[in-house]
Amino acid sequence: MPEQSYIRVTYLFSGGSPFDAEKKAKSIALGQTTDTWTPLSSKDLKTLEKHRGVVLSVGQVEHSDSTYRCKVIIGFPPGNTEGDIPTLLTMVFGKVSLDGKIKLLDIDLPKTFLSRMARPKYGVDGMRRITGVADRPLAMAIFKPCVGLSAAELGDMFYQTALGGADLIKDDEILPNIGTAPVEQRLEACLKSAQKAQMETHQHTLYAVNLTGPVTNIFEQARWLSSLGANCFLLNVLSYGYSVLEGLAKDSQINVPIMAHPAVSGGLSSSPEYGISYKVTLGKLMRAGGADMVLFPSSYGTVAMPTEEAFRIRDALTEPMGSLPKVFPGPSAGIHPGLVPQIVADYGKDVIINAGGGVHGHPMGSRAGMTAVRQAIDLCMKGYSLGKMKANAPAELKEALALWSK
Amino acid sequence: MPEQSYIRVTYLFSGGSPFDAEKKAKSIALGQTTDTWTPLSSKDLKTLEKHRGVVLSVGQVEHSDSTYRCKVIIGFPPGNTEGDIPTLLTMVFGKVSLDGKIKLLDIDLPKTFLSRMARPKYGVDGMRRITGVADRPLAMAIFKPCVGLSAAELGDMFYQTALGGADLIKDDEILPNIGTAPVEQRLEACLKSAQKAQMETHQHTLYAVNLTGPVTNIFEQARWLSSLGANCFLLNVLSYGYSVLEGLAKDSQINVPIMAHPAVSGGLSSSPEYGISYKVTLGKLMRAGGADMVLFPSSYGTVAMPTEEAFRIRDALTEPMGSLPKVFPGPSAGIHPGLVPQIVADYGKDVIINAGGGVHGHPMGSRAGMTAVRQAIDLCMKGYSLGKMKANAPAELKEALALWSK
Repeated sequence: MPEQSYIRVTYLFSGGSPFDAEKKAKSIALGQTTDTWTPLSSKDLKTLEKHRGVVLSVGQVEHSDSTYRCKVIIGFPPGNTEGDIPTLLTMVFGKVSLDGKIKLLDIDLPKTFLSRMARPKYGVDGMRRITGVADRPLAMAIFKPCVGLSAAELGDMFYQTALGGADLIKDDEILPNIGTAPVEQRLEACLKSAQKAQMETHQHTLYAVNLTGPVTNIFEQARWLSSLGANCFLLNVLSYGYSVLEGLAKDSQINVPIMAHPAVSGGLSSSPEYGISYKVTLGKLMRAGGADMVLFPSSYGTVAMPTEEAFRIRDALTEPMGSLPKVFPGPSAGIHPGLVPQIVADYGKDVIINAGGGVHGHPMGSRAGMTAVRQAIDLCMKGYSLGKMKANAPAELKEALALWSK
Repeated sequence: MPEQSYIRVTYLFSGGSPFDAEKKAKSIALGQTTDTWTPLSSKDLKTLEKHRGVVLSVGQVEHSDSTYRCKVIIGFPPGNTEGDIPTLLTMVFGKVSLDGKIKLLDIDLPKTFLSRMARPKYGVDGMRRITGVADRPLAMAIFKPCVGLSAAELGDMFYQTALGGADLIKDDEILPNIGTAPVEQRLEACLKSAQKAQMETHQHTLYAVNLTGPVTNIFEQARWLSSLGANCFLLNVLSYGYSVLEGLAKDSQINVPIMAHPAVSGGLSSSPEYGISYKVTLGKLMRAGGADMVLFPSSYGTVAMPTEEAFRIRDALTEPMGSLPKVFPGPSAGIHPGLVPQIVADYGKDVIINAGGGVHGHPMGSRAGMTAVRQAIDLCMKGYSLGKMKANAPAELKEALALWSK
């Protein structure tokens, strides 16, 4: 098989003592495809050849901080999968995930493979089309608090926040479909609030409603909510599985953009020695799974994510990848208006400014909180630095900066 | 809320410098339920109280190997979930999974919560009933090789292995539904082989067929395969999501036992400082999700799993847990007949002896390989040690021990 036809997977091996990286790489290439730990009489079967993995490169074993590390690249035949993320994951990081200090750093998917996969229906261009926001970051608010409020209370918060100029308002990811605010009720309340606010602002605010429920019913549920007018879905992709994301993106009846939440991904991606890099879990697999927007912890805020990790996610979402559209990065957690200049410097204008406490914690309330975010975005688009912004801030932004950007 | 009504979650915090564990615990208890990083005007809302998490205990911060560690227990209201694993995971390890060195060590689910969840349809007793194996470990073989073989070739291997006395034969987890051996074809071939072998052995061998495909179709697929006679499903639970396991277990039309494979779980569970313990991912959540058998790396074999980790999984699958039945542990990878005495000493007779290379790598072939496994089990049930077994082994077992238990 020509080398470019393989799915190329980069792994990092780590260990407390020197190891034979070549041997380890070979055992993965063969063990995850056609062979096992002991010789088999069938090992020379011709029919197996095109299903066998190959070691494409083995780096030098490097030694620092009493740890030995080595990067290897293994090529896997795309034909050993069903062209979807579950069978891909099982092949490249199934059993091997359990075998000592190994981290999957990167996956390169051949174009022919990508063309079989899901595809974001909207991406950056599509989101700009349906929000009507041509050339600035999108402004989003998260309901805070969220769990425990009634549909009417959420609808009120939606209205106030939409009046402040939100492009999107999202459920907190921890809000399931529970009796305090059943999903149909909160959808109805928020869509009404969006309409009401639009009469005043002439701006349409999308509602990213949390799509939850058993996977036996989640696609039915998505179609049902879509028929009720849902215009954006929030999905905890790692809680439900990438296949749910793929299924939504591939469903021609569900024409609703999907916002991927990173919940649970830290368990897979935070360790430097184990698991799968964020670049893959929140970057490449989200985009190739069909997400239009992907949230992840920023390096500025309250949840820890090193800057270079966040940038690798950003690049995976926005750099060329087959024929897939660019999708929106949403660096999140602890975001407030004073961070807008930094976010735009790091991400450009194709970014979602996503704030919860940084909107609703505003001393003048949710409307003023979102107004401050929009003011920060507008000044930033005019090239204002944080310092210049402080000197020229309208009332709402001034309050926000005084509180959070001392 | 009375303390026993909470979902109790134990976390381990780690850090390179001292930290305020109390504060960190509180920020999780509140941040994953009703509050956020900055004060909100709504923070005293009475309606939120019953949705708020509580810190139940904070251990001493301990210091060793230049790392500070502390265990805390947090109580979460069950009413903040939908009584399923996805909303449970999002609540207890969603955003918090991304926030520094934190490992989820354990989850205690209240009985009322467990009663809403899925339930293994078979468990140990049910599996003994349908296999007719009353009082010894189950003997299972994995197809090796698997990917790349035709349905007819798999059927032949099934026949040979069934003649050796296999209770179950399973697909390799890396075998998807691909053109070389479409799932209906291999199901048909293996069921025929099982019947044919049964004429000679008077023993019924189950076929754990790998259930794959998009989740949009996987339940339909399971019902279809079930209608064709499928009598056991293998599921890569982490690749597809726990909700697929729950959906299969809750479906009254799918009366087929489920064998959970640990593929990908290492990415979540291997790190001592990040992720979710194996006890939870492969133990409690598999059982509460409805798996009847759970495979995991043994500590004896070719894939690294510390003994105490494997035993915690064993205990989670077999110790009392609400009204859930005990389910079968299947310590796997690198298993061969010579390991049977050790496995039975560690697991008792409620265990699956699961070998791939250790069956098909037998010098006399697959039938002899499985015969050796059954011989080892039978001698072990008579109380033979490995030494005594070596001295009294019939031909097939003798060969296996000579090769793998030198």
